[in-house]
Amino acid sequence: MSLAIISPGKDPDVWIKEFNALAPDLSIEVYPKINEPEKVEYVFLWQHPEGILSEFPNLKLISSMGAGVDHILRDKSIPASIPIVRIVDEKLTFSMTNYVVMAVLNFHRQTTRYQLNQRKKIWDMSSPELDVTIGVMGVGALGKDVMDKLNYMGFPVVGFGFSEKPDFEYPYYTKDKLNEFLNQVNVLICLLPLTPDTENILNMDLFEKCNPNTYLINVARGKHLVEDDLMKALEEGHLSGAMLDVYREEPLPENHPFWENRKITMTPHIASVTNPQAAAPQVVENIRRIKENRELVNVVNRSRGY
Amino acid sequence: MSLAIISPGKDPDVWIKEFNALAPDLSIEVYPKINEPEKVEYVFLWQHPEGILSEFPNLKLISSMGAGVDHILRDKSIPASIPIVRIVDEKLTFSMTNYVVMAVLNFHRQTTRYQLNQRKKIWDMSSPELDVTIGVMGVGALGKDVMDKLNYMGFPVVGFGFSEKPDFEYPYYTKDKLNEFLNQVNVLICLLPLTPDTENILNMDLFEKCNPNTYLINVARGKHLVEDDLMKALEEGHLSGAMLDVYREEPLPENHPFWENRKITMTPHIASVTNPQAAAPQVVENIRRIKENRELVNVVNRSRGY
Repeated sequence: MSLAIISPGKDPDVWIKEFNALAPDLSIEVYPKINEPEKVEYVFLWQHPEGILSEFPNLKLISSMGAGVDHILRDKSIPASIPIVRIVDEKLTFSMTNYVVMAVLNFHRQTTRYQLNQRKKIWDMSSPELDVTIGVMGVGALGKDVMDKLNYMGFPVVGFGFSEKPDFEYPYYTKDKLNEFLNQVNVLICLLPLTPDTENILNMDLFEKCNPNTYLINVARGKHLVEDDLMKALEEGHLSGAMLDVYREEPLPENHPFWENRKITMTPHIASVTNPQAAAPQVVENIRRIKENRELVNVVNRSRGY
Repeated sequence: MSLAIISPGKDPDVWIKEFNALAPDLSIEVYPKINEPEKVEYVFLWQHPEGILSEFPNLKLISSMGAGVDHILRDKSIPASIPIVRIVDEKLTFSMTNYVVMAVLNFHRQTTRYQLNQRKKIWDMSSPELDVTIGVMGVGALGKDVMDKLNYMGFPVVGFGFSEKPDFEYPYYTKDKLNEFLNQVNVLICLLPLTPDTENILNMDLFEKCNPNTYLINVARGKHLVEDDLMKALEEGHLSGAMLDVYREEPLPENHPFWENRKITMTPHIASVTNPQAAAPQVVENIRRIKENRELVNVVNRSRGY
């Protein structure tokens, strides 16, 4: 039996090194050069070509290379009987939170304004801080951690999500209270999972309900955002700016208007990158549990979508 | 009796408004137009002209307009019998900490690199984070808060200061262990009070002991830093960059080389600005205590310098 790594465009070597160290007996295949597909019992996936898993008749476990699984669930050809697991990694949370806090603080402390003033040699001490109230869409492990850190730093935070959370620690709103949620915030962070409910949720209809000059931070998935609507919302002043780490097409095409928009700050999907040293042991542990017929860890609920 | 506001170049109106609301009976004079100097019993100072306080024969209380008092203590003509008090304001701590955390995160997440890549339309996902260990020089109320916040966010922090702190919560070093302190850090934050011990402490001798490419953040006082030495240390690679909020001369002169140095990020002394709404009640409270002959709050220890 073997583990197949299927992550087109990503270097598998760091992973192979970790797997070899942790489980020397585990044989590893790397897509697209799979020598013995009938021996593949486990796959480790990132953005796999749709339908390809049917090549492995003895597949027993599907493991995502990251926290997100939308790239797996969109492949409707995967039999419902094969369990899907994902990576839950403290380092992912550390990175995501610190990226988001950086984005919030750069808005709050007007980094762009001071950079421009430095270039123009302008000494302007007026209004050094913008008051912010931060709205977090998606209050799972990542969203909750972002709220905890920002709250500890002294910022007001409110949450939004699709499930009821009667005991949630911060003010929290569900879908029917979207307006009320947006009314309170001037920094909007998207950390939602990508599901049919949340795809395209960041659209003109939502932006029009925002307080004028709200700042948007999208670190979830490119498909949460209707990109043309963002350009329009920035132009019309519903939003004052955006920090984006994810895009509908990645790498972002060279002719994409985001590159040159001065109100958009971009990073190339690096907010939170799975760390092989933290993630590989989780994959190996689930392989062990499959063999021993024990309950898996970090199993994805397909109907919920994460 | 009256309170004299002496803060050349700063608008006193916001302060007058607060004092009038809190203590309608208190008469207020504003330097340089002091009508009855013999009636001035309290002064509220920021960067006052040296020697000027001798014009007030009945002076009973000197209050700084901020947390720092170096601008008062350098005036050796002030009689030792007059108490000096300063402002201690949670909002000052909030602002200072969030400024410093912003500077740390922008180094950690390489904001400058990604800004440049965006301008050049480069999609580069490699090495998204720099590992950081943060050294805080000065672990008073502000320094300790910075350490608490960074520690809570998952960063290793170590402290440096001039007093022994046997029960300090984080690794802590005094003057004779400066080398050991610097060996551990690649982000160096100066939050020291300005005293004869600390003036010019950020000099070539210290920079040469730093790990290569250490990042410097100075939010304390301009006089902590030997500015020519910073330029040289950046050139020679002892430091990779610096974020500065304070300067030896403020406003920074137009011909100063910092403005155009690409490794220096500048703000115009706005990291933490005294908030009249929080500070005025403290001044009024100390005036009340003087009248009632009670112990003052936030008294400065002149020999310690803060």
